[in-house]
Amino acid sequence: MTNIPEHFQINSQGHLEVSGCDTVELAKKFGTPLYVLDETRIRQNCRDYVAGLAEAYPETQVCYAGKAFLCRAICCLVEQEGLGLDVVSGGELFTALKAGFPPEKIYFHGNNKSREELALALENGVGYLVVDGLYELELLRELLGGTGKRQRVLLRLAPGVEAHTHVYIQTGQEDSKFGLAINGGQALRAVKTVLESPYLELAGFHAHIGSQIFDLTSYEVAAGILGRFMVEVRRETGFIAKVLNLGGGLGIRYTREDKPLPVREAAKRTGQMVREVFAALDYPWPKLVLEPGRSIVGDAGVTLYTIGNIKTIPGIRRYVMVDGGMADNPRVALYQAVYEAVVANKAGRPAGEVVTVAGKACESGDILIRDIPLAAPEPGDILAVFATGAYTYSMASNYNRLPRPAVVLAANGQGELIVARETYEQIVANDLLPPRFCGKGVREAVEG
Amino acid sequence: MTNIPEHFQINSQGHLEVSGCDTVELAKKFGTPLYVLDETRIRQNCRDYVAGLAEAYPETQVCYAGKAFLCRAICCLVEQEGLGLDVVSGGELFTALKAGFPPEKIYFHGNNKSREELALALENGVGYLVVDGLYELELLRELLGGTGKRQRVLLRLAPGVEAHTHVYIQTGQEDSKFGLAINGGQALRAVKTVLESPYLELAGFHAHIGSQIFDLTSYEVAAGILGRFMVEVRRETGFIAKVLNLGGGLGIRYTREDKPLPVREAAKRTGQMVREVFAALDYPWPKLVLEPGRSIVGDAGVTLYTIGNIKTIPGIRRYVMVDGGMADNPRVALYQAVYEAVVANKAGRPAGEVVTVAGKACESGDILIRDIPLAAPEPGDILAVFATGAYTYSMASNYNRLPRPAVVLAANGQGELIVARETYEQIVANDLLPPRFCGKGVREAVEG
Repeated sequence: MTNIPEHFQINSQGHLEVSGCDTVELAKKFGTPLYVLDETRIRQNCRDYVAGLAEAYPETQVCYAGKAFLCRAICCLVEQEGLGLDVVSGGELFTALKAGFPPEKIYFHGNNKSREELALALENGVGYLVVDGLYELELLRELLGGTGKRQRVLLRLAPGVEAHTHVYIQTGQEDSKFGLAINGGQALRAVKTVLESPYLELAGFHAHIGSQIFDLTSYEVAAGILGRFMVEVRRETGFIAKVLNLGGGLGIRYTREDKPLPVREAAKRTGQMVREVFAALDYPWPKLVLEPGRSIVGDAGVTLYTIGNIKTIPGIRRYVMVDGGMADNPRVALYQAVYEAVVANKAGRPAGEVVTVAGKACESGDILIRDIPLAAPEPGDILAVFATGAYTYSMASNYNRLPRPAVVLAANGQGELIVARETYEQIVANDLLPPRFCGKGVREAVEG
Repeated sequence: MTNIPEHFQINSQGHLEVSGCDTVELAKKFGTPLYVLDETRIRQNCRDYVAGLAEAYPETQVCYAGKAFLCRAICCLVEQEGLGLDVVSGGELFTALKAGFPPEKIYFHGNNKSREELALALENGVGYLVVDGLYELELLRELLGGTGKRQRVLLRLAPGVEAHTHVYIQTGQEDSKFGLAINGGQALRAVKTVLESPYLELAGFHAHIGSQIFDLTSYEVAAGILGRFMVEVRRETGFIAKVLNLGGGLGIRYTREDKPLPVREAAKRTGQMVREVFAALDYPWPKLVLEPGRSIVGDAGVTLYTIGNIKTIPGIRRYVMVDGGMADNPRVALYQAVYEAVVANKAGRPAGEVVTVAGKACESGDILIRDIPLAAPEPGDILAVFATGAYTYSMASNYNRLPRPAVVLAANGQGELIVARETYEQIVANDLLPPRFCGKGVREAVEG
């Protein structure tokens, strides 16, 4: 019981519930592994962002960072909540367009956009290109020069501030693949280039300072650096930025060790800090854009697995093995991420047995959770791993040729598929056999 | 020039060649990112394994470990070379069956096979199930009991030896999700259970001791432990094993720091060591099975990228950005893997400029190679990263909704597609829109 985040419930059967849906029933209906997203929670997170920011700052726009989790349905959902969308590739942009997302509310990021991706964005009237580097300006010149078209852009800046979860570091000269350095004059030169381009309209600036941030001071420091740069730009060129996009990065609760501010409070404080920065600089408040991803969908997600093999090594460890793992959630192997979980069909019982949850991939490193107390896990039980809404499906692989799980949106007692489970047929769909190989009787074909 | 492994060539234009194919032409024809596999090298690796092992040991079988890289064509290729196949999931088994791979030469591994996967294996006459745990025996009882069928199995053992690249560690009681522990009697009890099952035929034993192993002593130690266990089993039950499967794990050259034995030599020495172990134990030589994956395809692979954005941070670092990254090769982020590379269209020139190769994913961690000397990289150049044949495509994701690259098999001047490039349409193919969302005019539909 102790492990269960507040927005989950336990029903009368002692099963874990998400937005009124019995997770055990969801597992039965849709199979496992299964990603479940709590629609109520996602909408609440969106509304808290929008309201918190609006309370503190005159003009604001919250954009959902699609790289955390993107599919057509989520585009529609965040659009309904009034959010814009941050995409980072042609594939994400394609998804948004396929969902009918209004292109003018899309910000297109990326440190190395290709010509084809830029062309796709320009053809479809993407609202803002977030330009990262002189090479991109060169591609835009080739694509737009002489067409009479004009594209609104932000410039991505490297402010020399990096947030490290609970602290921030000012690096002075940031060693990053992202952004134009403010120090050294690269950013100012890019501003001048854009201002001189007849086919580009500079709207403002963007910076993103990190991920899973708990100390909001990082945003204040970044806003201060960007603000002073904007004052410098005004002095040098007369340009006044209309948009300041501070990216995303707000941390969420993965385990009880994580104590993020509530979203509404965090958004409000961020707005207040930025407002104060610009008031002190005597600079007209730009529209403030935030781009949360993880903090919109992360804590709304739960992954359901079926427990299979259990291996007890006397005196050492008990391995509880599930039907997914690093293929559907690579964050443990990638970032040493820590998760909490419960046995969904025993959610009301005390978690008395410390076990290690291992995945099914043929790799020693496929361990999902080390040393977690669970309620008497047995084969056939459903394991629910919390806070898996962000960077799980979006990073999932077919490692071991495991099909990627389905995604279900749960709301008010109804679970609906928003991503279908992959099939074996889909996994081999792109496999081609050159003529000298053949499907059947390979050996004979070769020897005969 | 210094970076180029011996089985690559530089042609008269100064371009990198793989099995007679100009990589710059391959990139032009098939696009980038592109995985290229040198068929000649794969076949040579297969033949070296088969020949080296046969030189040293009476009865042998080399199986290709599909998890390193699997598609239909590679199944056909290794089958032509006389190899068996090691699969670890229903998806891998499905791929092999779709390729017409002879099921009797398939070994099916996995620490948590599902009932559906086992059923698929049984229906299709898979040669060997490598049973890992009592839960699997229980599932097999349910699936096979009373059918009159009989399935050949190996038991996966935990020998308490773990190879750590250049050294091995005897852990006594291995803390692993894999295998039945020899120490403590779990393995012996499982042997007795299998011997008593009318629907199972025990053929022998399997162990896998690690990955990217350079010190072959690990295999000798493991074979010794398994041999002594087999002697114990004979004493206790009279059972004599016909098959000993020592898994895979032989290391390959990723960089010039790695100095693996040539495959043929490594296979021969492994065979000799096992032969000596069993001679000393006075136990009839079982058929020796090895399951190399990485050392069959790893060094045969090269990934081609196009260089786009280049960012110079004066006095600090120069970032050379390519059109792929952690989505097509997660091994750098996952294992801190180190790779070598050349500019394919300048392969004959000295590599004078130390740069950092960054991927295009919207994530600071998406760095492919740190501090590598390259020959004057410019936008539009083709970068060739070596030794990417294993655990790249097989672990690739759609992170950032990037389509997975195509795979080309190169042989004698001909490049042929064996995996088609993913399309944006395929990426959204499984996205579903519940009725309350709609594709176009989302906002109106909701408010209207």
